[in-house]
Amino acid sequence: MDKREFYNNPHRRYNILTGEWVLVSPHRTKRPWQGKQEGHPVLDRPSYDANCYLCPGNQRASGKSNPKYEQVFSFVNDYSALLQDTPISTYQSRLLKAQAEKGICKVVCFSPDHSLTLPLMEVQDIEKIIEVWQQEYNTLGKEENISHVQIFENKGDIMGCSNPHPHGQIWAQSSIPQEVEKKTRQQQLYWEQNQKSLLADYLEQELESGERIILENEHFVALVPYWAVWPYEVMIVPKKHRRDILEMDNPEKKGFAEMIKKVTVRYDNLFETTFPYSSGIHQRPTDGREHREWHFHMSFYPPLLRSATVKKFMVGYEMFGNPQRDITAEYAADILRNLPDRHYSVK
Amino acid sequence: MDKREFYNNPHRRYNILTGEWVLVSPHRTKRPWQGKQEGHPVLDRPSYDANCYLCPGNQRASGKSNPKYEQVFSFVNDYSALLQDTPISTYQSRLLKAQAEKGICKVVCFSPDHSLTLPLMEVQDIEKIIEVWQQEYNTLGKEENISHVQIFENKGDIMGCSNPHPHGQIWAQSSIPQEVEKKTRQQQLYWEQNQKSLLADYLEQELESGERIILENEHFVALVPYWAVWPYEVMIVPKKHRRDILEMDNPEKKGFAEMIKKVTVRYDNLFETTFPYSSGIHQRPTDGREHREWHFHMSFYPPLLRSATVKKFMVGYEMFGNPQRDITAEYAADILRNLPDRHYSVK
Ligand SMILES: O=P(O)(O)O[C@H]1O[C@H](CO)[C@@H](O)[C@H](O)[C@H]1O
Ligand SMILES: O=P(O)(O)O[C@H]1O[C@H](CO)[C@@H](O)[C@H](O)[C@H]1O
Repeated sequence: MDKREFYNNPHRRYNILTGEWVLVSPHRTKRPWQGKQEGHPVLDRPSYDANCYLCPGNQRASGKSNPKYEQVFSFVNDYSALLQDTPISTYQSRLLKAQAEKGICKVVCFSPDHSLTLPLMEVQDIEKIIEVWQQEYNTLGKEENISHVQIFENKGDIMGCSNPHPHGQIWAQSSIPQEVEKKTRQQQLYWEQNQKSLLADYLEQELESGERIILENEHFVALVPYWAVWPYEVMIVPKKHRRDILEMDNPEKKGFAEMIKKVTVRYDNLFETTFPYSSGIHQRPTDGREHREWHFHMSFYPPLLRSATVKKFMVGYEMFGNPQRDITAEYAADILRNLPDRHYSVK
Repeated sequence: MDKREFYNNPHRRYNILTGEWVLVSPHRTKRPWQGKQEGHPVLDRPSYDANCYLCPGNQRASGKSNPKYEQVFSFVNDYSALLQDTPISTYQSRLLKAQAEKGICKVVCFSPDHSLTLPLMEVQDIEKIIEVWQQEYNTLGKEENISHVQIFENKGDIMGCSNPHPHGQIWAQSSIPQEVEKKTRQQQLYWEQNQKSLLADYLEQELESGERIILENEHFVALVPYWAVWPYEVMIVPKKHRRDILEMDNPEKKGFAEMIKKVTVRYDNLFETTFPYSSGIHQRPTDGREHREWHFHMSFYPPLLRSATVKKFMVGYEMFGNPQRDITAEYAADILRNLPDRHYSVK
């Protein structure tokens, strides 16, 4: 059977980074949809909102006030899920097993301007965000008992974002979270067998075929991974083997900022809306080990499937069986590749 | 540190069935919520809706017509994610790996009455649904190259349910889905070491402490598992070691139906709404192996956290790190245990 025919039939694909599978049902988008329609997000926001907890100078829900910040601004989350003073301990009683978890949660305001989002920012402003990510990764990672620093963004209210002011979060913690454990294990196995980074070899193969590539510049590639779960999932990967974001030099940092801008512009252009997603940077744990196997990357998990108001639901089968998707990675890459570089709102 | 204090601090809990962890942040429900509010579901539906694809006698989107069914009615999904005629084959090209997947997807209408949901049905009507699940599990499981039969329900539009007519689904397929693989591995390890079912020992421990038990009858226990991910997650487990739903005798089948009714009534009573969830039955694969380790159970994963309109979002941190929850399993069990047995709409 030829590859195209194979891809047109239901199949599972293997995720080399996690060792897990995704079920692909390419013929399934034809089904009618009588289900939930999401509301349209508000597109025109003012540059300053007096009721926003995150705008410069405003008071937050906790009573604290934001400085009149003019650049990127990061602070400890007033409602942190992890706390710095949690005593490290474990609990076990026969089949019940738990571990105390210590950590620090931060909020990173991307801009003082309430109305912006990453695709609407200038590349040099995104560079400033990357610099704060670097500082935070570096500082938090050096704290006692912090083995992992997770940088992420929830964008859009359908991704549980409770405030539209452009911001991301950082959760640093004492143990290595599960998804990162999986990726560490798989990359380590590959490193031991090949003395090469798994993602470097993967990139090589993807660049040869081109099928799933959206964009590339001198330093980075944006692609839909072969094992993508979310309809328009994208991964941004450095061409050189970099274990974490601190290992980038200045031109790389600029190339990374440019990629983030271009990917998020294409996202907004896809359904001509401010495109919701969760994004995250996976990089080497800060547990003091060398982690030569790690090759950092930034992933975007966007839920929209058919339009600005119809998303893919990861529910019944997906929760009890496997993640499942309705369009192929190749189809999604084709669509994203051919979208314009200019934001639809810019006349 | 005493157990209560330990549980009040952020901690991770181990899931004995999957070998994975959940992060628990018990102090976190205090944060303000300016985020998404879900719409209120429509509660008053007619018993028959001329526009419903699933009502008796109506035409479906595919053009086929439903019989004038009077009991539970199951049929092959017109938009199946898995197809019966997919040729079994594999694809590998260096780092890309895929397998064709064959399967059968069915829809199970729980009742001809468009207005009903499980909590509003009589116990004997739920028994009839269980009988259809048994027949389907038995028949589909015997098909050539069907190694697993997943029975599940998505309830409510926020769980991606595209039609409010009471119904569930069954996806039978050639490979064993990932979640089931994990549970098989963990139960098998335990069986080899102890010659006993993991869940039987777990139930014993839970019944001794009572902390997470919601309800029990002669044959079944309903509890919030120690490692629950969703705010009000519940697991219904048979007291006797049963590998699959075919191994129940008649009194057990009745006990199971009664438990499903009681759990879903409590769910509706929690926020006085028709409570959304995805539920699924995990049981032994139909791959022809004995699977003495398997102990079947039915789980409910409901998203609502604070009210009928505010759900828990599994987004950024949860996707890139670990599942995370804001209330403890003990707290959730306490609340559910103390809710009345009578549905709030019944005067
Ligand atoms: O089959 P339905 O009801 O159209 O679809 C629903 O359940 C499926 C199985 O969990 C999911 O894949 C879909 O995303 C969801 O909308
Ligand atoms: O921290 P926030 O923005 O209030 O909350 C959001 O992101 C968190 C981290 O992914 C999630 O745990 C919450 O469910 C979500 O609503």
